[in-house]
Amino acid sequence: MKTTLTRRVTFCAGHRLFNPAWPDEKNREVFGLCANPNGHGHNYVLEVSVTGKVDPETGMVMNLKQVKAIIENQVVARVDHQNLNQDVDFMQGIIPTTENLAQQIWIILDRAFPGEALSKLVLWESENNKVEISR
Amino acid sequence: MKTTLTRRVTFCAGHRLFNPAWPDEKNREVFGLCANPNGHGHNYVLEVSVTGKVDPETGMVMNLKQVKAIIENQVVARVDHQNLNQDVDFMQGIIPTTENLAQQIWIILDRAFPGEALSKLVLWESENNKVEISR
Amino acid sequence: MKTTLTRRVTFCAGHRLFNPAWPDEKNREVFGLCANPNGHGHNYVLEVSVTGKVDPETGMVMNLKQVKAIIENQVVARVDHQNLNQDVDFMQGIIPTTENLAQQIWIILDRAFPGEALSKLVLWESENNKVEISR
Amino acid sequence: MKTTLTRRVTFCAGHRLFNPAWPDEKNREVFGLCANPNGHGHNYVLEVSVTGKVDPETGMVMNLKQVKAIIENQVVARVDHQNLNQDVDFMQGIIPTTENLAQQIWIILDRAFPGEALSKLVLWESENNKVEISR
Amino acid sequence: MKTTLTRRVTFCAGHRLFNPAWPDEKNREVFGLCANPNGHGHNYVLEVSVTGKVDPETGMVMNLKQVKAIIENQVVARVDHQNLNQDVDFMQGIIPTTENLAQQIWIILDRAFPGEALSKLVLWESENNKVEISR
Amino acid sequence: MKTTLTRRVTFCAGHRLFNPAWPDEKNREVFGLCANPNGHGHNYVLEVSVTGKVDPETGMVMNLKQVKAIIENQVVARVDHQNLNQDVDFMQGIIPTTENLAQQIWIILDRAFPGEALSKLVLWESENNKVEISR
Repeated sequence: MKTTLTRRVTFCAGHRLFNPAWPDEKNREVFGLCANPNGHGHNYVLEVSVTGKVDPETGMVMNLKQVKAIIENQVVARVDHQNLNQDVDFMQGIIPTTENLAQQIWIILDRAFPGEALSKLVLWESENNKVEISR
Repeated sequence: MKTTLTRRVTFCAGHRLFNPAWPDEKNREVFGLCANPNGHGHNYVLEVSVTGKVDPETGMVMNLKQVKAIIENQVVARVDHQNLNQDVDFMQGIIPTTENLAQQIWIILDRAFPGEALSKLVLWESENNKVEISR
Repeated sequence: MKTTLTRRVTFCAGHRLFNPAWPDEKNREVFGLCANPNGHGHNYVLEVSVTGKVDPETGMVMNLKQVKAIIENQVVARVDHQNLNQDVDFMQGIIPTTENLAQQIWIILDRAFPGEALSKLVLWESENNKVEISR
Repeated sequence: MKTTLTRRVTFCAGHRLFNPAWPDEKNREVFGLCANPNGHGHNYVLEVSVTGKVDPETGMVMNLKQVKAIIENQVVARVDHQNLNQDVDFMQGIIPTTENLAQQIWIILDRAFPGEALSKLVLWESENNKVEISR
Repeated sequence: MKTTLTRRVTFCAGHRLFNPAWPDEKNREVFGLCANPNGHGHNYVLEVSVTGKVDPETGMVMNLKQVKAIIENQVVARVDHQNLNQDVDFMQGIIPTTENLAQQIWIILDRAFPGEALSKLVLWESENNKVEISR
Repeated sequence: MKTTLTRRVTFCAGHRLFNPAWPDEKNREVFGLCANPNGHGHNYVLEVSVTGKVDPETGMVMNLKQVKAIIENQVVARVDHQNLNQDVDFMQGIIPTTENLAQQIWIILDRAFPGEALSKLVLWESENNKVEISR
């Protein structure tokens, strides 16, 4: 019976949405207030799911301790209290929308988890907006 | 990488559950307190998901401004603070269960979003009950 | 050490806000969509607090079983799935705003709880609006 | 149009995670604080989903009254305020991780619901950890 | 019977915590990651309470339409998607901690609401931290 | 302007409610399922509030780092994943109701925080029950 374990973590970060190839008006038109020059920020909620068989010796899909360590080291430590445009290596040259941030986190976590264990990722930017990626 | 963007909105509405083809006792038996003649109501939470590729120029599956406008104009403006049995055109002749309301909202939104962008819809009637439809 | 115990319950109800002494336009102006003639409704959340000394024999301010029974019998059974304007005896002739509903519930519960045990009541009409009354 | 109805319930239970075939150190290493000899416990949240066609006579996938009764009788009545290791028949000889508890609940509910109505089950052990099983 | 009406709103903003009179190490020691030079941000939740008598003609402490307009015009329009250090006039020269932001919002709202209607303000910076001011 | 800072933390614990001076039937009658011999448990949510003036040099009532350390060392480290009846020194000989647990935590934290900084404590035992103590 395939079973999915999900861990929820939170972090906060700053960002500004704009496409440097566009004039200011176009950025303002497409990104609205999110294009404000001095940036703003969010409390993000990240849910990471791993799917697999349950190990009969432990009763676990994967040890939560290991899941937590991977998410903490690979993601939270690199984005928490950072500015996504300026401080985060894996977001350089990428517009820091929730979609793009979720995709980069997927790429990182998919390498960090064994095999195809990573099955789903949900990233909330606010209580009303979220982005999801599934295998 | 297929990516899903979800927008959450809330509205409130009144309704009464009953099948006009049935005698009162049968309505009471099937629908319980929901069949009370003078109606009651709920705070609904609606989550609308669109799935697609992320546009490299915007970093978005679809502009949230557009997603919000479609949901607001096509759904919220027509149901918020209304009586589902009496005031809402697309619910006429339909028992206003959460299932039926979700199906009608799906039909409306599926026409309003481009192509097959609409991928999932969740409708909460209370903190303990929800209905989902996926493509 | 004075200690407060709070119980949270939910119910749903229908209502329409209007002052029968006013013309339609004034009702529409003051109450907005809430004055729609066919009514709408909400999921209400009610938090009831009782304050007192902790009984050393039970470790309780009041037995939760008793608190639950009072709230259920005195309030929930009379409003849940009802229309506040038409079906609820204690709301007759009263505009069913959250403020007025909270005040009537306070009067009822204050009689039902021993002495001045009732110390606070919070009534949420939606996730964004609440009304509170304290002794 | 396939439609899914989900009911959310809560219960609390005690448990201790350990593999009786292992020495204490290994249990402590794998299960951490969860291996504490005198046990601890959680408030669990269980979401049960049934999928099917909507009956045109009732507007329902399944009557919520029936869904609630099955979950209450088959699951909640057997685990609520119990110790999962010692008191719950269907958990005997099974390490009471969230994964194993979810799998046993799936087996029980899949037998209790008609045909393949049961489509998904989510079990939250805390606000940050959940396990899901889908058909 | 004194009754309190509370409105909850959300906004997001960027900020950086540092005291310009201090060397970098002291800022880092006191403010930790919050002193990162490029700033970060949060989703704030603001709850504004007004207390008074219920007007028998409207059943309201104050019209929610008016409460919403004051909060929107006086606060949300000036901070939402802004950088608190650089863009917000009433935060110039003030370290943008949640405490200081709450105090400035109190001063603004206390002037905007009639008499001493404003009774309490709660400002959440994250799901785990909040600041409150009461009259 | 007096300002209150609140920190929210979570822990889980096991417990059994019974008065050893009473026969089984009386325990069962007063405590219901909570008297089950093998115990059960909860996810507790603890909110700790400190009130004071805001330090103009830091913009803080108290440094959150310090608040977190006190709560972690004095409370969470002693109760998390423990059995309140058997493992927690400060609960020995005390019926572990939410009221009694809150009172003991108050006594501990009131000694740990400077002066009368501690102003309020809220302890949730479930999403529907909480206990509060204020100075």
